[in-house]
Amino acid sequence: MSARVLPAVGAALSAIDTPALVIDLDAMQRNLQAMATYAREHRMRLRPHAKMHKCAAIAKLQMAAGAVGVCVQKLDEAQALAAAGVDDIYISNEVIDETKLARFADLAARITLGIAVDSALGVERLAKALKARGSDAAVFVEVDIGQGRCGVPPVAAGALAHQVVSHGLRFAGLQAYQGRAQHIRGAAEREAALQHAINLVRAAQAGITRAGIACPLVTGAGTGSFVHESASLLYGELQCGSYLFMDRDYADNEPTPNAPRFEQALFVKSQVMSRGSAHAVVDAGLKAHAVDSGPPAIWRRALDYVGGGDEHGILRRRANASDAKEALPDLGETVWLVPGHCDPTVNLHEHYVGVRGGLDLGVVEAVWPIEARGCLG
Amino acid sequence: MSARVLPAVGAALSAIDTPALVIDLDAMQRNLQAMATYAREHRMRLRPHAKMHKCAAIAKLQMAAGAVGVCVQKLDEAQALAAAGVDDIYISNEVIDETKLARFADLAARITLGIAVDSALGVERLAKALKARGSDAAVFVEVDIGQGRCGVPPVAAGALAHQVVSHGLRFAGLQAYQGRAQHIRGAAEREAALQHAINLVRAAQAGITRAGIACPLVTGAGTGSFVHESASLLYGELQCGSYLFMDRDYADNEPTPNAPRFEQALFVKSQVMSRGSAHAVVDAGLKAHAVDSGPPAIWRRALDYVGGGDEHGILRRRANASDAKEALPDLGETVWLVPGHCDPTVNLHEHYVGVRGGLDLGVVEAVWPIEARGCLG
Repeated sequence: MSARVLPAVGAALSAIDTPALVIDLDAMQRNLQAMATYAREHRMRLRPHAKMHKCAAIAKLQMAAGAVGVCVQKLDEAQALAAAGVDDIYISNEVIDETKLARFADLAARITLGIAVDSALGVERLAKALKARGSDAAVFVEVDIGQGRCGVPPVAAGALAHQVVSHGLRFAGLQAYQGRAQHIRGAAEREAALQHAINLVRAAQAGITRAGIACPLVTGAGTGSFVHESASLLYGELQCGSYLFMDRDYADNEPTPNAPRFEQALFVKSQVMSRGSAHAVVDAGLKAHAVDSGPPAIWRRALDYVGGGDEHGILRRRANASDAKEALPDLGETVWLVPGHCDPTVNLHEHYVGVRGGLDLGVVEAVWPIEARGCLG
Repeated sequence: MSARVLPAVGAALSAIDTPALVIDLDAMQRNLQAMATYAREHRMRLRPHAKMHKCAAIAKLQMAAGAVGVCVQKLDEAQALAAAGVDDIYISNEVIDETKLARFADLAARITLGIAVDSALGVERLAKALKARGSDAAVFVEVDIGQGRCGVPPVAAGALAHQVVSHGLRFAGLQAYQGRAQHIRGAAEREAALQHAINLVRAAQAGITRAGIACPLVTGAGTGSFVHESASLLYGELQCGSYLFMDRDYADNEPTPNAPRFEQALFVKSQVMSRGSAHAVVDAGLKAHAVDSGPPAIWRRALDYVGGGDEHGILRRRANASDAKEALPDLGETVWLVPGHCDPTVNLHEHYVGVRGGLDLGVVEAVWPIEARGCLG
């Protein structure tokens, strides 16, 4: 829909109209390699979450570096990425609507597809849709391991896996993700929450074994937790997403010991469009970056973003700022924002501008459409 | 970008795939008429803010009911709405970038266009761009009347108006909006903030008169404040936007005495896709509705939305619920959400589904593209 002016490949950073979603491609590729290397060295499958980046070009880079495919949360996302050539997608979430399940079954006839279930009704409807279409999908039973959102209690996992098998569906394992634990600030407290979650996974897996069913795979984990799932000897697949871009919220976590470090690779380029005596106003508000996890940070300047509303961001000098970089930016100056939360920030934009050579002297190397933006259904 | 499945005109509500942005057209039209009547009876021009709805079809309905045109905040929004046939647009915000100003001057050659300024540099660049293109625009001087965001201090308004005139630009009046005051809960406290703002407008206007310049119009006001601007005898034009749809945040305000009442007209249709023993999970998270002003309310049910993340909403029974409607919804059931904040919620969606006849037995009457969604620049 957007009337957006996009920069040409090879253009200088000054040619990027603001606000724009910009990737530091050098940092992104180091993150991509670091996670691929980690997974390989720890003998884990990597299936990164494309709900974060929503972009086929990036999914393909991840798969070229060893990922077995990608995850998404929504059927619409799977359809959009499949249409752009991504051929192995797992919807790590439930679909209960029969019209949607018919579309799912259609898509399963064209690409390698998986889905999660957490109810008898969901299993029954999924089986009916796949049978009607004559297509096949990997079916994971989701277990609630402490988030209190989707998933059956661990004690019920065996019975639901039995229903999956009874309906002639291909039981592929357990979906087990603790989303809330990702953002626990202290490393020790985060590990404790993960150990609790892993114990629940162990109980669920034992229940499936008792039901006489083989559990081929446990899949889950996020950027804040994957070291623990990897060490559990239960999980076989990692679903991390945010590691590729990072955000202010993940950067606020105390690092996990022995975890690879990821760099900030996602930015919103903004411009000062108004100046007061003690504040500057940039042209990027909460329609340009998500604030559900707090305000953006200002990249390498001692400035705070103190709100401003839908279309504006008000910047003030940090109280204890003392060096030359503390100065308020001038009218027309570029300011790089580090989004508070990467996933919903990406979902506000139609394109990524990929920059090579850093945010000072880099050039535009790629403009990628965000195919699954707005794919909510 | 979205692979969205859209309902046919005439379809039942069950045909609307979730999550979807739905307008109760009956309620919207009552809101539209109530504001149009208020403006006419109070001899105020009405120029509703299209930054809220971002939709040409709705802008045209407002203009057909008497609005002189619409406001937007961004050049990209103006371009998108102009391309869809809206021919009188005021950008109630500053543009400092020279590339953008060249595009502004192009657009000013095609439609009736206005813009705000709050700096000498902005005036100089605007004059240069309009002169280069040979086009004309209405230029408003923005005054900061208490929000601490854009705008010059009232004492500086006369000097900036003088610069506008000196550059051969058409000075059209004052832009004077107090955004923060819109959401002050108590009616008396809100009125006090507005009276302070109005006193600052009076000071700015006096400064312009002292500079020997006529001030043709003061434009501003929002859904939470317009009764006060109308009573001030200073303002000549109202810019309210949210009155058309409303949201949970505006509904939480204590009503202004003697103000027309507006009804909730904007909803996110969601569906229960997972059920626990004491909670239900709907398929609409913070990628389907904005949470900057808090969570959505649940329409006509004693349920609370207690988070859930990017793609999920967790619903729980309200502690004090006691009637039949308190029951948790079943798997597959429809739940109507009232967004916390309408503007950024609209900005997440590609289409409106307009429903006639209410949310129980209505039918789809219209599907409107949201042309200016994602128009950030």
